[in-house]
Amino acid sequence: MEGLDRRAVLRTGLLAGGAGAAAVAATHLAVEANRAGVGSRAAAPTAVRPAVLPFRGSRQSGVVDAPQPFAAFVGLDLPEGATRLTCRRLMRVWTDDIERLMAARGPLTDLEPELAAVPSRLSVTVAVGPGFYAAAGLDAVRPSWLAPLPAFAVDRLNRDWPQTDVLLQIRADSPVSVAHAARRLVVGAEPLAVQRWVQRGFREPLTDARPGMPFRNLFGQVDGTVQPATDGSDDRLVWLGADPATGGDGAEAAGTPAPKGLAGGTSLVIRRIAMNLDTWDQIDRAGREHAVGRRLGSGAPLTGRVEADLPDLAATDDLGFPVIDPVSHVRRAMATEPHERILRAPYSYDDPPAPGQRSNCGLVFVSFQADPVRQFVPIQQRLAEADLLNIWTTPLSSGVYAVLPGAQAGEDLGAALLD
Amino acid sequence: MEGLDRRAVLRTGLLAGGAGAAAVAATHLAVEANRAGVGSRAAAPTAVRPAVLPFRGSRQSGVVDAPQPFAAFVGLDLPEGATRLTCRRLMRVWTDDIERLMAARGPLTDLEPELAAVPSRLSVTVAVGPGFYAAAGLDAVRPSWLAPLPAFAVDRLNRDWPQTDVLLQIRADSPVSVAHAARRLVVGAEPLAVQRWVQRGFREPLTDARPGMPFRNLFGQVDGTVQPATDGSDDRLVWLGADPATGGDGAEAAGTPAPKGLAGGTSLVIRRIAMNLDTWDQIDRAGREHAVGRRLGSGAPLTGRVEADLPDLAATDDLGFPVIDPVSHVRRAMATEPHERILRAPYSYDDPPAPGQRSNCGLVFVSFQADPVRQFVPIQQRLAEADLLNIWTTPLSSGVYAVLPGAQAGEDLGAALLD
Repeated sequence: MEGLDRRAVLRTGLLAGGAGAAAVAATHLAVEANRAGVGSRAAAPTAVRPAVLPFRGSRQSGVVDAPQPFAAFVGLDLPEGATRLTCRRLMRVWTDDIERLMAARGPLTDLEPELAAVPSRLSVTVAVGPGFYAAAGLDAVRPSWLAPLPAFAVDRLNRDWPQTDVLLQIRADSPVSVAHAARRLVVGAEPLAVQRWVQRGFREPLTDARPGMPFRNLFGQVDGTVQPATDGSDDRLVWLGADPATGGDGAEAAGTPAPKGLAGGTSLVIRRIAMNLDTWDQIDRAGREHAVGRRLGSGAPLTGRVEADLPDLAATDDLGFPVIDPVSHVRRAMATEPHERILRAPYSYDDPPAPGQRSNCGLVFVSFQADPVRQFVPIQQRLAEADLLNIWTTPLSSGVYAVLPGAQAGEDLGAALLD
Repeated sequence: MEGLDRRAVLRTGLLAGGAGAAAVAATHLAVEANRAGVGSRAAAPTAVRPAVLPFRGSRQSGVVDAPQPFAAFVGLDLPEGATRLTCRRLMRVWTDDIERLMAARGPLTDLEPELAAVPSRLSVTVAVGPGFYAAAGLDAVRPSWLAPLPAFAVDRLNRDWPQTDVLLQIRADSPVSVAHAARRLVVGAEPLAVQRWVQRGFREPLTDARPGMPFRNLFGQVDGTVQPATDGSDDRLVWLGADPATGGDGAEAAGTPAPKGLAGGTSLVIRRIAMNLDTWDQIDRAGREHAVGRRLGSGAPLTGRVEADLPDLAATDDLGFPVIDPVSHVRRAMATEPHERILRAPYSYDDPPAPGQRSNCGLVFVSFQADPVRQFVPIQQRLAEADLLNIWTTPLSSGVYAVLPGAQAGEDLGAALLD
């Protein structure tokens, strides 16, 4: 598989039913395109991606890369009495282990390197919480947004998934790669950090074969239509310390320079949202589309024809009522300021139900943004105040982390922060 | 995606790094081969498979098909007071729902048909337990092997996953398809049957790209080397009522005609086996290979060079000790009679760990065989008596089911049994 991404093939017309010569030609193009693209960071979901993602660089993988179909989010805590040295040692261990895992080799202590050996676009993204700053004696330089998110009225937070000192986001094309990497990184970290919880999720593996149809959650709802561009033009919405020249529309988002040690990093918000399929089942299509404000099939707003159409909030029906309900999800989620934009990378979960339960499923909501308080909180505040979807959803956890910058050659993760 | 399997492409030389013209030629072949293969039942793992598996036919899908990477096994019980009419109604509902789901359409009552719409080789295989026969008043024709498996010394059976009246095996290339199909079939069955438990599992999606390297479990161990042929020559080992003329080596396995209503069916054994990665981590490669009796890398027996080599049990080392330990897994699992052969289709599981646990993982062992008492029990008996792998594994559940024959056109599943 090395050197050629199966998705490069999936994205060609080949698999859309194109026959014979046309299919062959399309594949030939994919082969060529991929050869040029190997080693480069993928951007838009239609770009060609290598089977191995880069570890070394100014930014970590797993942020702007199109989300791989499997993910594990692992929350870990530092031990009591941890110091900056503990933090440095942890990053030393993980830097080496992650570099090897992402290159499809096992860590040095790996006794099952065969489980790491199939390149599957593994990305491991390391992020830290407020407790990491406290242990490292760095409270003075902690970004103001790296603090508990406001309590939202809809939250029913569960102590099973608290904010932790450290977070690993592990994503890959193969669930075996994710399981193996999570295991090796958790075992390798002890006793410098101890696992507190794991949340696993998945997305449709074939989504890329259907350009223009992004993530669909287990309500059947298209999720993630409006996203910042990942071609660089919206970098200041997503990355800390991005060059203002590449700020594009969102240049006003990051009003301040990156906090110490975080240039090339970002923030990650993770919220576990239970989805009640039993009550959702009681609502017909029209009721669902009314609650969402979009067509379930196409993802188009109720006032539009295709997913990319902008919702027309002024449109009314024959009786004079708004076509898009003022408390529909799409209306409440819509940015009211240009900087209220976040890069979403959510995953569905479908865990074993408790006895008597039919389903235990929902969404691991994940978003990246330069400043969660400025970009994410206003959106979430509006949704918490009023959003028809709240009838069927319950947030069970809420965490915020600073995604560290990438590790340059010869450097450990977190070097600029912990020096 | 319709009409062309992405795996057809994966299996060509294309993705093995072949460049330019060669790659294009290989893909062209795959396109042609697939066109011929659409609609046919897949056999050997290297055969070309369509993106949609057939529902109608004399045998159900999901038995000899190369296992899709995702699975959910759903155990359901009939309600108290269930009769043969309950069983018939349940099969009427499921026959229609499964036919639609496997054709990448939602069931008639499906409010999220978009989640069913991506063809992903979904197979839903229906099997029934002793309680189904009792409810239907069919105890007199229940096969003798459709009864609790013997208690094995190693078993630590947990009441979370008991034997149930009915089992759904749901497998697909996409975890979204599996989640959606499981949900719709469980909701659609109520109140004719009620879900008791769900077990989810996964395999490496890319395995097919590496012919000759079968399933690898989370111990890193190659699992499933010795399998009956699925080209028809071993049909009497796998299927009930197989034509003796196609019996091949295993012609002696099925000594009796198929039990009433099960010609074209088989039996399914499912055992949940916890794997203790914490203690497994304490054993080095040599110790692991000694316990398994095979090399971890190649899967070859310790006396051989490649996976397909037969273990040489007589071989001794310089000190005169047997190279393959008499209580190694490969030695104990080896058939001592020619009929002790089963078709294994296991899945790894990696569920959310309880607080304080690092991993909650293992194997959903699944095997198909014409007669589990004759073919499976002797193997499992030997493993339970002595197998070095028992140190790190614990069976948590043990169930046996009769897989119904396929539904012919115009017929419901179980028609021949319930008429």
